[in-house]
Amino acid sequence: MTNSNTQHVVGHLINGVARDDASRTQEVYNPSTGEISKYVAIASQATVEEAITAAQAAFPAWRDTPVIKRARVMFKFKELLEQNADKICELIGQEHGKILHDAAGELQRGIENVEYACSAPEFLKGEFSKNVGPNIDSWSEFQPLGVVAGITPFNFPAMVPLWMYPMAIVCGNCFILKPSERDPSSTLFIAQLLKQAGLPDGVMNVVNGDKVAVDTLLHDPRIQAVSFVGSTPIAEYIYATATSTGKRCQALGGAKNHAIVMPDADLDNVVSSLLGAAFGSSGERCMALSVAVAVGDEVADRLIECLSQQIQGLKFGCYADKSNDFGPVITQQHKNKVVGYINSAEQDGAKIVVDGRQAAPQGFENGFFVGPTLIDQVRPDMLSYKEEIFGPVLQIVRVQTMQQAMDLINQHEYGNGTCIYTRDGEAARYFSDHIQVGMVGINIPLPVPVAYHSFGGWKRSLFGDLYAYGPDGARFYTRRKTITQRWPSANVREGAQFSMPTLN
Amino acid sequence: MTNSNTQHVVGHLINGVARDDASRTQEVYNPSTGEISKYVAIASQATVEEAITAAQAAFPAWRDTPVIKRARVMFKFKELLEQNADKICELIGQEHGKILHDAAGELQRGIENVEYACSAPEFLKGEFSKNVGPNIDSWSEFQPLGVVAGITPFNFPAMVPLWMYPMAIVCGNCFILKPSERDPSSTLFIAQLLKQAGLPDGVMNVVNGDKVAVDTLLHDPRIQAVSFVGSTPIAEYIYATATSTGKRCQALGGAKNHAIVMPDADLDNVVSSLLGAAFGSSGERCMALSVAVAVGDEVADRLIECLSQQIQGLKFGCYADKSNDFGPVITQQHKNKVVGYINSAEQDGAKIVVDGRQAAPQGFENGFFVGPTLIDQVRPDMLSYKEEIFGPVLQIVRVQTMQQAMDLINQHEYGNGTCIYTRDGEAARYFSDHIQVGMVGINIPLPVPVAYHSFGGWKRSLFGDLYAYGPDGARFYTRRKTITQRWPSANVREGAQFSMPTLN
Amino acid sequence: MTNSNTQHVVGHLINGVARDDASRTQEVYNPSTGEISKYVAIASQATVEEAITAAQAAFPAWRDTPVIKRARVMFKFKELLEQNADKICELIGQEHGKILHDAAGELQRGIENVEYACSAPEFLKGEFSKNVGPNIDSWSEFQPLGVVAGITPFNFPAMVPLWMYPMAIVCGNCFILKPSERDPSSTLFIAQLLKQAGLPDGVMNVVNGDKVAVDTLLHDPRIQAVSFVGSTPIAEYIYATATSTGKRCQALGGAKNHAIVMPDADLDNVVSSLLGAAFGSSGERCMALSVAVAVGDEVADRLIECLSQQIQGLKFGCYADKSNDFGPVITQQHKNKVVGYINSAEQDGAKIVVDGRQAAPQGFENGFFVGPTLIDQVRPDMLSYKEEIFGPVLQIVRVQTMQQAMDLINQHEYGNGTCIYTRDGEAARYFSDHIQVGMVGINIPLPVPVAYHSFGGWKRSLFGDLYAYGPDGARFYTRRKTITQRWPSANVREGAQFSMPTLN
Amino acid sequence: MTNSNTQHVVGHLINGVARDDASRTQEVYNPSTGEISKYVAIASQATVEEAITAAQAAFPAWRDTPVIKRARVMFKFKELLEQNADKICELIGQEHGKILHDAAGELQRGIENVEYACSAPEFLKGEFSKNVGPNIDSWSEFQPLGVVAGITPFNFPAMVPLWMYPMAIVCGNCFILKPSERDPSSTLFIAQLLKQAGLPDGVMNVVNGDKVAVDTLLHDPRIQAVSFVGSTPIAEYIYATATSTGKRCQALGGAKNHAIVMPDADLDNVVSSLLGAAFGSSGERCMALSVAVAVGDEVADRLIECLSQQIQGLKFGCYADKSNDFGPVITQQHKNKVVGYINSAEQDGAKIVVDGRQAAPQGFENGFFVGPTLIDQVRPDMLSYKEEIFGPVLQIVRVQTMQQAMDLINQHEYGNGTCIYTRDGEAARYFSDHIQVGMVGINIPLPVPVAYHSFGGWKRSLFGDLYAYGPDGARFYTRRKTITQRWPSANVREGAQFSMPTLN
Repeated sequence: MTNSNTQHVVGHLINGVARDDASRTQEVYNPSTGEISKYVAIASQATVEEAITAAQAAFPAWRDTPVIKRARVMFKFKELLEQNADKICELIGQEHGKILHDAAGELQRGIENVEYACSAPEFLKGEFSKNVGPNIDSWSEFQPLGVVAGITPFNFPAMVPLWMYPMAIVCGNCFILKPSERDPSSTLFIAQLLKQAGLPDGVMNVVNGDKVAVDTLLHDPRIQAVSFVGSTPIAEYIYATATSTGKRCQALGGAKNHAIVMPDADLDNVVSSLLGAAFGSSGERCMALSVAVAVGDEVADRLIECLSQQIQGLKFGCYADKSNDFGPVITQQHKNKVVGYINSAEQDGAKIVVDGRQAAPQGFENGFFVGPTLIDQVRPDMLSYKEEIFGPVLQIVRVQTMQQAMDLINQHEYGNGTCIYTRDGEAARYFSDHIQVGMVGINIPLPVPVAYHSFGGWKRSLFGDLYAYGPDGARFYTRRKTITQRWPSANVREGAQFSMPTLN
Repeated sequence: MTNSNTQHVVGHLINGVARDDASRTQEVYNPSTGEISKYVAIASQATVEEAITAAQAAFPAWRDTPVIKRARVMFKFKELLEQNADKICELIGQEHGKILHDAAGELQRGIENVEYACSAPEFLKGEFSKNVGPNIDSWSEFQPLGVVAGITPFNFPAMVPLWMYPMAIVCGNCFILKPSERDPSSTLFIAQLLKQAGLPDGVMNVVNGDKVAVDTLLHDPRIQAVSFVGSTPIAEYIYATATSTGKRCQALGGAKNHAIVMPDADLDNVVSSLLGAAFGSSGERCMALSVAVAVGDEVADRLIECLSQQIQGLKFGCYADKSNDFGPVITQQHKNKVVGYINSAEQDGAKIVVDGRQAAPQGFENGFFVGPTLIDQVRPDMLSYKEEIFGPVLQIVRVQTMQQAMDLINQHEYGNGTCIYTRDGEAARYFSDHIQVGMVGINIPLPVPVAYHSFGGWKRSLFGDLYAYGPDGARFYTRRKTITQRWPSANVREGAQFSMPTLN
Repeated sequence: MTNSNTQHVVGHLINGVARDDASRTQEVYNPSTGEISKYVAIASQATVEEAITAAQAAFPAWRDTPVIKRARVMFKFKELLEQNADKICELIGQEHGKILHDAAGELQRGIENVEYACSAPEFLKGEFSKNVGPNIDSWSEFQPLGVVAGITPFNFPAMVPLWMYPMAIVCGNCFILKPSERDPSSTLFIAQLLKQAGLPDGVMNVVNGDKVAVDTLLHDPRIQAVSFVGSTPIAEYIYATATSTGKRCQALGGAKNHAIVMPDADLDNVVSSLLGAAFGSSGERCMALSVAVAVGDEVADRLIECLSQQIQGLKFGCYADKSNDFGPVITQQHKNKVVGYINSAEQDGAKIVVDGRQAAPQGFENGFFVGPTLIDQVRPDMLSYKEEIFGPVLQIVRVQTMQQAMDLINQHEYGNGTCIYTRDGEAARYFSDHIQVGMVGINIPLPVPVAYHSFGGWKRSLFGDLYAYGPDGARFYTRRKTITQRWPSANVREGAQFSMPTLN
Repeated sequence: MTNSNTQHVVGHLINGVARDDASRTQEVYNPSTGEISKYVAIASQATVEEAITAAQAAFPAWRDTPVIKRARVMFKFKELLEQNADKICELIGQEHGKILHDAAGELQRGIENVEYACSAPEFLKGEFSKNVGPNIDSWSEFQPLGVVAGITPFNFPAMVPLWMYPMAIVCGNCFILKPSERDPSSTLFIAQLLKQAGLPDGVMNVVNGDKVAVDTLLHDPRIQAVSFVGSTPIAEYIYATATSTGKRCQALGGAKNHAIVMPDADLDNVVSSLLGAAFGSSGERCMALSVAVAVGDEVADRLIECLSQQIQGLKFGCYADKSNDFGPVITQQHKNKVVGYINSAEQDGAKIVVDGRQAAPQGFENGFFVGPTLIDQVRPDMLSYKEEIFGPVLQIVRVQTMQQAMDLINQHEYGNGTCIYTRDGEAARYFSDHIQVGMVGINIPLPVPVAYHSFGGWKRSLFGDLYAYGPDGARFYTRRKTITQRWPSANVREGAQFSMPTLN
């Protein structure tokens, strides 16, 4: 699809230059109003290859730049992100729909990854072993890979890219980012700040696009590694395709995050934190808590009573009104899909306690809104339980024991995040030990690891072995080189050695 | 192929029980004599699945065993390996053909991995962060994956399996090993020692077999990870297939390891160490040095003169005669292949300085012998240069500058090991920094990293991101779990939070 | 004091040779019978200096021995300790008095430090930083100090020395041990096993003695570091003296370890674990739990009822009878001192609930026994509360709130170990965060860190900055060396630089 | 000494308030002109105690502040230091005398420590061990000490304090700095920026003063640790005194840094880098290279010829003229002392090749100048060799072999820094392995470790076990706490355990 008004086209960033020419474009909506607000350029294979070429050209000088100098670009980048926070949040809100205070939270989480990248001199240290054999030393260096790519989703247009490229770049790589075409503006704006922070041209590149761009990145032999965050079917495709061309790959997929509510939980805390974790950002978070598992009907009844009361007080609407608790979902199609899941739950016999299907905030009747929805009596065989809804829908499952609750979680195909609400040390420890989930909260509903740890789920929530950002990010974006060194002494000659040499 | 004499069949180890029944078998040769010495069972899909089932059953108790207790199995295993060294070396020699002193070197290298596995309480420590937010703590645990598999080559039947399963097991996993069917006895014997070392049944399993066994492991959803060492085409197949079923995978492939000989090198050291590195184990090592790149014709001429003199003194023959420098290659087919490469080099215009094609040690005329072969005037376009020969063949390439030598290496498809011979600090540092190879020696011809570092090449010598054994092995065989914890205080209530929470 | 029967003199180990000649000796008792069993040599200054000279002579070769070879001595040492366990426990029991099963526990804890020392190739790795400036690399090496000394107490004649010298030696140092003269035999026997394990002569030396030996070690300039475990007044003397001669020093002193018993504690667990923690080894442990702080009188009353009942079932007597729970104290003088503390508590108004002052197991009436003693109504101003008793005496303090209990602990001069009994996550976390104690147990009465962590208290329980064994042990016994390297390039000349150079 | 003009008095910073009242003061000179430029307040014991009280009051809240928030103060502090660089360098130049470009280098090195402090979330991670026994976990926390003190020298008024307090503060401590009274203004100005960076009042305090202030800090029991940089006699006093009151202490002393010039060295590089390393900052650096050891007379002769030629081109004079290479020494007394060393060398028979004793730059005749001085034929027995001169004096010692050169260095009482100039890998490796010096350069004349490594010498150049800044700094400023945790299960009761418990 083409458009005649190139003034509103969000373009690419290649070799330090903003490129908004595009033969193909796609609409970008303001989900709060339902209107088209901009167009985004859709890169051709040639455009993506141009970005790769630029990145490859920038690599030799960048990999030779001392790590503290690379880190200083990140120090400066942090300053610029903080200075431009309002602008960035406005762009996020316009195109994603999340409320400005939520956009600020997203940005802050992204900045924390930049702060961690400033620690590169520390986390890039290799290991030095003296005398692995007589007068033989050996050490490891963690060298950059070359050109690496990131493919990111619409729901965190600022944060998820910031999980990737600050780490990749500070490790000495050059980067091609293919962000979501739904809300490209904040992503592009942020990437452009890097030049101002002192990053040489070509080290960071952004290409907007669709499957053509993705497949170009997956197949081009110059791309050494691919990081992906999105849905599980796409994650599987990315992982299988990138690895089939010999690349390293980490692909993060979907989630169905459960909270177990134990009888001894602090219910006020449970309710208030569940509301935020289930409905915040309209539930469009891969760490959203979408299922609460109540242990015992007494807990379930109290929980539902409290939740349904408090849900009445929630406000949703336009991103720009900070008094709102959450905003619209990303598209009309996605709204239809969320409503479809609620319908199916109803048809499957679940009980719709609070119904958000008819949401239409005054003045924003064309926005893509779904109201907060609470469903009781959900069972594991229902479609609404098995799949990820990605909307403001909280489902309650009732079980009689903690073990049943854990079995439920362990049998689900996803294993991204989970939480238990309890005061009991033993229950918390048993849960965190045996639950088949990568990110575990004890009375923490959204246990996203801080930037100096690493993000990743288990089972079909992550494909690969190294997680996103933090220490794993550093290992993913570097290639180990081990050097073993002995210096010849003029007077010592050694006989030839035909056995497998042991160094000591 | 079946056989009627089940007494000589090398079988499987499943759930702690030796299993030598087999419907299909394959011959095992003594390469020194060329005779069939045993048969090896070829597992069916059902047999492999039985092993996986046993491993999965053993997993829950093993992963709950405190790490120091798991490490103590490795302490004991080390003792048993040392006590049984002669027996193991004899088995290696009989079926692989390498001389007993070389087998002892191989075993020692394997034991070093067991020693490192004894450090598990140290290397399995997670990271604990206090107050990631007010009164919120977060830490990482490195939990075992479950059942993991290893597929290993003929050339190091003791060592390469020991790169894998001691680390996998000490991390809390259960293991299925599919070793080479060419020389299965030492591998099986060693694995059986683990029971004596106190390992519970089912934690370690060995299945001998062919592609049926491999594909069963690659497709069974209960296998969480696959480690492979072998040739590059198979490594690519393993990597693409294992990842397409969602597994993590590390696949180590072929090599073409170059040594650069600089004009200032200590030539006596070069010659004696090159002889061992090129001809030791008949060149059947993925770290064998098969190409020497002489910088300047003067160096080349002196090098060839010294090498050809000293090659005269080399002895090759039966594995059991410790005065031999090296033994036969693994099979008649492989001998033919090696000779074919020498023929092709000759036809392409290279100069056969020392010719090992007519090797027939007295009394072992039917053994699979190739004599030490030295070829001069090799060029990058020759088949013998482009492919891995895996035989006792040392090729000389002549260049005029160090940069030309490095370009040659960087343009080769493999990047496993390499070495520079020099006394000059600057040359060594420039080389190790810029060479596109994973394991670099400075005056060290076989720079195999010690067990407390990790083994892996670059480019098409390794697929995956984490290397074999050492710190990377620990990371590969564990799954990160991050726990974030806050305890509710009775009197402090918190308002619901709808923004993306930042923990601090 | 001299003696004419040199056959029973426990001597020294200097330069690999047992040395039982001695001009001065001192009696060694069997505390179970009260009889003199042996004599121990008391080293002169000259003897200690001879040991230092031997150690210094052995240093150059030992520090050049590759770390994996040093670690292999520890692998073998572990085997020998396990093979000789019965002999060692018998020696401990004879001279210290602890029951054989307790001696076995002590030895096992000691062996764990040897196991950790086997990890030296891992924990001695330095940090390598590439390109700290353009083409400038920098790395750290942790080199041994030279000759270091350990001075250890009577209460763990096997374990406490094993906290020190395996770490010191595996790091490449040579060691002089001055153990307690009360129970020297097991210490000496164990040290002699090192030779059998392959340790070169002179690397490990033992000198028995008194203040003459100690002061020689503290003042000799060839001693680089001193590790001490004992009472706080001596620890202060050691720390001040060793540092005044420029040495590094870590000096561990006394303790008064409190357990807080919360109202929600699992009382059965509290009672059974308190009994062991208070009376095990007759309370002669620096981690013994000697004060239980009950939160609320209800808890206190129930606790005392249960404890006094169960104390009736405790057996104490000769070390050799494994049905005994604990044995005698170390000397008659020490028995008198313990009884004196009980008397003072009684005089100060505390209530002696169970009185062990008249202990005399049948057949061992001359042994140095004190029976299990339980004292209620203890107050912080009593002498028996303020000082370390080091006997089988458990005192109960009653408070009304957890904060009062914590204040009590934080106001005590010692800060070695402590424990809280609770099921509540929040209470445990608040306690462990704010308590001024180095080793904290949550429902663990003796929270001795495992060998791969480090042992040390706070306040007047430890002087120095690095703790005993584990990672801190490695840092204490090594000296950091940082190497920064650039190689000159022939064609690049640099102008003189007069400013403070920044490397990048 | 008192003064009537309080406007020019440099005061203290206590609890966030600048305090320039002072009953006692001392002159501060401008060494370039020789004139008194300011007065500095000399704190009484009461003033120092007031600072300690303020620090102690600020501690509880600061230690509870999440580490990332503490780190963000350092991020902001870095920005402010960069923005105020010109002002700071001017203050340094005025009072210390170093040229502005050198002051800028000093400041940059200081800022690098602030950058490293921003990595605190990474380097403060504790170690978490799961299942140290069945269902028992153990982890370490690195908690701040409380109130700690730093005592710093005149020669780096900005950098050396920045080695200490950014690390101490980011670890959660409160700090009392006692800087040099010679050049206090830049130190105070920098410390005041911390408030602007968001640091709460009382966390950072500066007291100017003399021995009264020092002794108050050494004896006050509320001070937990002391870091010192200065001369060796004072370092010894600080170390012995601080430890005698039970504190931890690191005390860095004097130096005599040698460079070995090998026959194969790149002489142009040697000469240019030696000039900077010997005369930069008038040699008033503890890492100044003050002795060049030439191996062979040929090297010595060439070296002296080149050096004496190039010394002619050096410019020295007022700090404000950036065309100067170096400035005055700190005081008239120090000038006299430096000249005295030159005189003594002359009297002892050394040859004054270039004589700087009569230095008097035009217009600055009253400044405390010593010109660049080159002395040949220096022998180890001369006073000028044995002691630290701390002036622009480069001495040449001639030896015949590298071993003689190394023996010379190893026999000197100091062991701070050293350098070898060579192209040979073996020589460099042998040197760095065996030299008894803490900071070693290979062709790097001032091998000051970068901020992410740690600074410290050997022998009488450092007292203590942990070095300044970097990883050692983090360990020095924190106290290890080890927590071992088990949660009781309602149904599992355990029998009392009287043996020494082994956790597994």
